[in-house]
Amino acid sequence: MNDPATTESYDPKTTTLLSFSDAVPGFLDGSDTPRAYLERCIETVEALEPRIQAFVTLNLDGARAAADASTARYRAGRPLSPLDGMPVGIKDVHETEDMPMQVGSPIFENWSSGWDGACVFALRKAGAAIVGKTVTTEFAFATPGPSRNPWDESRTPGGSSSGSGAAVGARMLPAATGSQVRGSILRPAAYCGAYTLKASYGAINSLGGFPSAPSLVHVGFITGTLADLWIASHAVSRIAGGDPGHPSLGGPATLPRPDKPRRLIRLETAGWAATTDETRVAFEAWLGTLADSGIEIAGRADDPEIEAYERDLVTLREVIALILTYEGRWPLAMYAEREWDRLSERVRDRVVAGRELAPEDYARALEWCIAFRARHDAFAGRADGFVTLNQVDPAPVGMAVGDMVYGEPSSVLGCPALNLPLLAVAGLPLGVQLMGFFRADAQIVAHAHWLVHAVRGIAAPG
Amino acid sequence: MNDPATTESYDPKTTTLLSFSDAVPGFLDGSDTPRAYLERCIETVEALEPRIQAFVTLNLDGARAAADASTARYRAGRPLSPLDGMPVGIKDVHETEDMPMQVGSPIFENWSSGWDGACVFALRKAGAAIVGKTVTTEFAFATPGPSRNPWDESRTPGGSSSGSGAAVGARMLPAATGSQVRGSILRPAAYCGAYTLKASYGAINSLGGFPSAPSLVHVGFITGTLADLWIASHAVSRIAGGDPGHPSLGGPATLPRPDKPRRLIRLETAGWAATTDETRVAFEAWLGTLADSGIEIAGRADDPEIEAYERDLVTLREVIALILTYEGRWPLAMYAEREWDRLSERVRDRVVAGRELAPEDYARALEWCIAFRARHDAFAGRADGFVTLNQVDPAPVGMAVGDMVYGEPSSVLGCPALNLPLLAVAGLPLGVQLMGFFRADAQIVAHAHWLVHAVRGIAAPG
Repeated sequence: MNDPATTESYDPKTTTLLSFSDAVPGFLDGSDTPRAYLERCIETVEALEPRIQAFVTLNLDGARAAADASTARYRAGRPLSPLDGMPVGIKDVHETEDMPMQVGSPIFENWSSGWDGACVFALRKAGAAIVGKTVTTEFAFATPGPSRNPWDESRTPGGSSSGSGAAVGARMLPAATGSQVRGSILRPAAYCGAYTLKASYGAINSLGGFPSAPSLVHVGFITGTLADLWIASHAVSRIAGGDPGHPSLGGPATLPRPDKPRRLIRLETAGWAATTDETRVAFEAWLGTLADSGIEIAGRADDPEIEAYERDLVTLREVIALILTYEGRWPLAMYAEREWDRLSERVRDRVVAGRELAPEDYARALEWCIAFRARHDAFAGRADGFVTLNQVDPAPVGMAVGDMVYGEPSSVLGCPALNLPLLAVAGLPLGVQLMGFFRADAQIVAHAHWLVHAVRGIAAPG
Repeated sequence: MNDPATTESYDPKTTTLLSFSDAVPGFLDGSDTPRAYLERCIETVEALEPRIQAFVTLNLDGARAAADASTARYRAGRPLSPLDGMPVGIKDVHETEDMPMQVGSPIFENWSSGWDGACVFALRKAGAAIVGKTVTTEFAFATPGPSRNPWDESRTPGGSSSGSGAAVGARMLPAATGSQVRGSILRPAAYCGAYTLKASYGAINSLGGFPSAPSLVHVGFITGTLADLWIASHAVSRIAGGDPGHPSLGGPATLPRPDKPRRLIRLETAGWAATTDETRVAFEAWLGTLADSGIEIAGRADDPEIEAYERDLVTLREVIALILTYEGRWPLAMYAEREWDRLSERVRDRVVAGRELAPEDYARALEWCIAFRARHDAFAGRADGFVTLNQVDPAPVGMAVGDMVYGEPSSVLGCPALNLPLLAVAGLPLGVQLMGFFRADAQIVAHAHWLVHAVRGIAAPG
């Protein structure tokens, strides 16, 4: 067991987090078992949790029972799915029948519906072992929880999927769920050196959990490897379905084969202005290696349409803020009526701001989003995807969860976006973002596979 | 207090149910109060509830406290909205902080989230007095509850908004919430002689309740008058917002002025083949009066495009069944895993059928819906709306909630649809359906206003 908090620097070429997929051949040939895999995870949890504080609640008995059942299925040669036996953490915004859902707020202390949210139900159907609930910020946007960044405990793991990022970055688990309306999956994955896919809007059923700005919310996974990221996203999307009215992820059940992109659009977004020089240098250097390998990189200086798109992307910040505020009128305004004293200032501010918004303001914001999504997808014939950063700097010191600016575009656009932990600054992970086109998730993941291979020299079996 | 169960025949020209809007001038001039209005409702509830069985749970103390607060606001000349003080029943698929949500299933006995659903929260913000939870069928589609039709207690009030229809039809309340994925608002309103608006998909926030087929579910009101229908729908849509990603209802806060339609498309839908002769005759006679008043009525025999549309409307039955079954995979399949013995055969059948469906089947159904909605809306330049029935016959004898065939098109199309209780057969109410175009709710309600006026000779103040 490594202890990254005290011994390691993050090196994108060599650092490895937990892989579940790599263990499956051992489950099948009997040299390893899901129960043994889980016990190794638990050993790390027990060693690091007092410092990392990734979890709100643990149910190790439940996880062990699920791992034992999985072990029996592998013995019988009949695993339920590619993730049968996977130990998974559940962000504490998703309901589980066996643990409370407390969404980082004292007003939800010990609250439980008694049922599993859709993604949790799907994980159990796929054979996963649900280990515990991971820390989130208050209502997934306000007061941070206690979780620490496993690469430097004086720093935030990011948020709002704080505990999920920390647990995976600390090698406690191979995978944990997250949710994003602004930057809440991409950011913690980036700060913690993990992989994430914020799939196309609607691809993973978000029902059965806290309703954070549902027109923008995306459920996703934070994982130690790209292969595990895809098998979890794909299986849950297909078992639970997408959000109602949306199709599930297509593509293969295991990681799509590497597909070298020919042309990528490099986006600055509103994030670039806030990005530190050291981070910019690392990103530019990586783009240089892509260009050296023959991938054409086009940016705002190369193409007036990209320049126009970049200029308008900045407007998106106001639009997303308006939508979040408006969609918080229920339930946040309801919580405020009964529990004002137990809400943070930030939640109260959102409630107060919501009172000023008219339905017509919201309707205009929705129209803006529809038009902007069409503009994004209009690049589909002209590039294989978009590259940008996921953070303005390595995880900042302190508990504030950091700047979410790089997460916002894909949250509004609804397009798939990945964090690939392929860079480092000063021994801390720095994630690049690869964005694709709406409902073309498998394609952008195949390109991500190629990019990971280029940095790390390892391609998952195709 | 009338007792329709034993004394009345339904006469569309003269029968009146409760009106709340008509009482408001009395609240303002001090000759009446919301508390006194509520007490009149409670008197009827106490007299009829033992036979009608509209309610699962009552909270009369809570309703009285809300009515008293409303009374004080009128005294101060400051009502919160046009429905301040309105006694409202809540279909037992919507959460309320003060009563359980049991969705007609023993597995939800005494279940409560502790919070109000979005529509309930909005009603309270508008000043409504929440009287109780009304009976629904099991999970809003399966085993019927005990409610009786107030016009003939041997008959069903329809479902799944059974108690809401019965409570309004029996003059216990001026309004109650309902929800529809197939025909669950239109049908009980029709059987009980009440008004309903199944607004455009997404116009009224459905969060905070049982997730019945969310890509089709519509929240709405069943009311005693068209004026109350509009004020409730409009206020709740604007206070709670629409479903995330959807705009609220536009138009005025009180009933739009009557607007005579120039041309209506008369649809048979799959319902006509199942409709009895007596019912057909009543409907045809009504269409005759519309034509006599100068409204052009065009049907399948008049226009090859309407004929083609009618032919394809029949396909919609299979599509809606597939969507319902697929979207039931969560949560119904989850309930089945833990509570198989306490689910009805019908719920179990849906769970079993869901296992056979692939995500691609669902994706194809969604595509069909998108294309069909566009076809519906393409009639917008050619007619003011569509007329059809809401029932194949008056409410049938027995507890089965009746044929929902006429409700299905507008559920899939997402267009606004009203029940107007303008006909009768054998002393029982027979509702006509007026369907409009997506997000043009105020316009179709203005046409409905004209049609009601034409039958009843009363126009609400404009």
